[in-house]
Amino acid sequence: MSIESTIMEMAKEARAASMEIARCPSNKKNEVLLKIADEIEIQAIYIQEENQKDLAMAKEMSLSDAMIDRLTVTDATVTSMSKGLREVSQLDDPVGSKSKSWLRPNGLEISRMRIPLGVIGIIYESRPNVTIDAAGLCLKAGNSVILRGGSEALHSNQALASIISQALADTGLPAKAVQVVPIRDREAVKVLLNQEEFIDLIIPRGGEGLIRFVVENSTIPVLKHYKGVCHIYIDDGADLEMAQNICFNAKVQRPGVCNSMETMLVHRSISQEFLPQMSERFLKAGVEIRGCPDTCRILPDARKAEEADWPEEYLDLVLAVKIVKDMDQAVSHITKYSSSHTEAIVTGDYKRARRFVREVDSSVVLVNASTRFNDGGELGLGAEIGISTSKLHAFGPMGVEELTTTKFVVFGDGQIRT
Amino acid sequence: MSIESTIMEMAKEARAASMEIARCPSNKKNEVLLKIADEIEIQAIYIQEENQKDLAMAKEMSLSDAMIDRLTVTDATVTSMSKGLREVSQLDDPVGSKSKSWLRPNGLEISRMRIPLGVIGIIYESRPNVTIDAAGLCLKAGNSVILRGGSEALHSNQALASIISQALADTGLPAKAVQVVPIRDREAVKVLLNQEEFIDLIIPRGGEGLIRFVVENSTIPVLKHYKGVCHIYIDDGADLEMAQNICFNAKVQRPGVCNSMETMLVHRSISQEFLPQMSERFLKAGVEIRGCPDTCRILPDARKAEEADWPEEYLDLVLAVKIVKDMDQAVSHITKYSSSHTEAIVTGDYKRARRFVREVDSSVVLVNASTRFNDGGELGLGAEIGISTSKLHAFGPMGVEELTTTKFVVFGDGQIRT
Repeated sequence: MSIESTIMEMAKEARAASMEIARCPSNKKNEVLLKIADEIEIQAIYIQEENQKDLAMAKEMSLSDAMIDRLTVTDATVTSMSKGLREVSQLDDPVGSKSKSWLRPNGLEISRMRIPLGVIGIIYESRPNVTIDAAGLCLKAGNSVILRGGSEALHSNQALASIISQALADTGLPAKAVQVVPIRDREAVKVLLNQEEFIDLIIPRGGEGLIRFVVENSTIPVLKHYKGVCHIYIDDGADLEMAQNICFNAKVQRPGVCNSMETMLVHRSISQEFLPQMSERFLKAGVEIRGCPDTCRILPDARKAEEADWPEEYLDLVLAVKIVKDMDQAVSHITKYSSSHTEAIVTGDYKRARRFVREVDSSVVLVNASTRFNDGGELGLGAEIGISTSKLHAFGPMGVEELTTTKFVVFGDGQIRT
Repeated sequence: MSIESTIMEMAKEARAASMEIARCPSNKKNEVLLKIADEIEIQAIYIQEENQKDLAMAKEMSLSDAMIDRLTVTDATVTSMSKGLREVSQLDDPVGSKSKSWLRPNGLEISRMRIPLGVIGIIYESRPNVTIDAAGLCLKAGNSVILRGGSEALHSNQALASIISQALADTGLPAKAVQVVPIRDREAVKVLLNQEEFIDLIIPRGGEGLIRFVVENSTIPVLKHYKGVCHIYIDDGADLEMAQNICFNAKVQRPGVCNSMETMLVHRSISQEFLPQMSERFLKAGVEIRGCPDTCRILPDARKAEEADWPEEYLDLVLAVKIVKDMDQAVSHITKYSSSHTEAIVTGDYKRARRFVREVDSSVVLVNASTRFNDGGELGLGAEIGISTSKLHAFGPMGVEELTTTKFVVFGDGQIRT
């Protein structure tokens, strides 16, 4: 079969399976999730054997150590995949719930009922655990899913998909509700991105290059997460010890993730007191500071920031620091350089806290808390499938509910329109 | 200036204006809406003079009478535009409201706050009143808007836009919050559809050709409304008088709109009793019936339906009729041919009413009511900007709330992540 007909066939089967999954009650969906969790542990050796094939090829192709590390399915990976599925089984099922209901003057009873989106396509890079995390969340929300992971993880992903399909079949559900694209050629992705008739949503997970490729080639709606250039603004009169703790946590606790702080904005009036202490703590942790001219005057050892530093997502122990004359300047800087991901203010001022929350246009805006809380689990949504930085459909962490939509349900007694 | 730089400049200015409109309190937005409503009435002669220029050109180009009719701004058009704006000013303002709020175990207070989408691009065909309706809804929801109507309505649309911009400026708001693309060349649309950095959403309003063009050329998310192939299923044991009234209303009251019925599905057991009476009423109203073989046996004068009739949106006094052996067959038919727009069941059976509502996957599903109720105003959402038949972000009528999104707001007391 050609690439085109293989993908189209998969998309059609996903659509057919989605009808059954959509009507499936919660207890049956949870049964499948728990079964997959058990089978992953039972079949850990099989998964790791298949993973070895990918690793052997990766070494032959001289992939970087970092890539090989991400590709490896360790015992800990297996445990974490199973644990994740068991947690998803515990989440509330949004499908069928009615978010609102109202009566019209003519007696019509209107409500909005949550329904699955239908078929979701996920395009991601090498980590095989995404296969399980994504499949679990999509199934919980009543959707079919077509997964296209990195070609270097194909054996691992196919092993995981076969375990999922078997569990679906054993529970009396359609095995085709979860499918992995079996083609390494990137052409397969292009074809997938044009199955508008059968696929309702595409979620790319990976670097900016992958996401741009998907956006430019897709006729299907895309939920995208470009990058996190997160700011913390330390206001005049802020509790400086609190500010230090929050900024240290946001930069150092896990610098390689999208919700870590990349730029710190400091009010001029407290900069002389705050920056030397903060910088000492950062230096001990190995953080390199790149400062504006005023910052470098206070911290003579800091490297001078260049224009390219302000929009940069370092994902590393590097921090841009800028002194601002007031909150307006801080908000202007954020408006200009932020990626709409996460921004925080540390303040004791009621009015400015309220203003910051209203005026900053990012998916999560925090007062007196670390940017690291932009995470589905931390915000109380449960597991997430990514963090959307575009505003349509979902803005911020996407949990199970963001994998659904609503339809209108109308109950009448013979009403007609006049 | 080239087309590209003109459009890019407009998009940038729209983005800048959107920041101000987003922060604008409701009373000021309503003030602008009411001012525009007044000015449209005061400047009716100016609008109609500009409209005459479009009409003269349309006649020169020998456009069809139907198109010229849609293009004409009558006194009634003026009144209805003003009335629409005054109604929109009465709607609740969603911006700033918090839909949900919860506390985390660590004391963080999380909420989801409604915010404007930002900049919306609307691409539509000839009716100039869309310029006012769309601008009013976008402003109410705190968005900037770039409007690109049919090139044959350019003078009319520019006249309306100049009235809106003047009203914005007079109220101390940015005039560039509403702009009309001043270029007839379709290339301008292509450029507009790629201003992903400055535009958050594209809404096409028009025929299938226009919508497909937009979907294929846009890197910006698109909310689309293809067509309405709406079904009504008359169940075994339904109140046949109620069924007659609903079906008559759904087909005849306004056949040229997307929420009118195109196919009627009739349970076999009541077909002998129902169809002759129903058909008589339809025939008197000039409705042509195209029936399945069983229908033609009961109604020998009916034309035979062909395969092409089932997915057809007639938008006319034509109705496809099919007899089904049970609700399963009705739902299968709907699943195969529906456009996900609107479907209804007429039934007295509790269980089947519940099943129909759950199993039919359309934006509005009705029990014992006319499909004509799929309309923002009729469902109680106020004015609408279209009816989405794709599931992402909005499914069904899109009112003011659908022109917003939510961000997460987090209040803490120094929380850090451990």
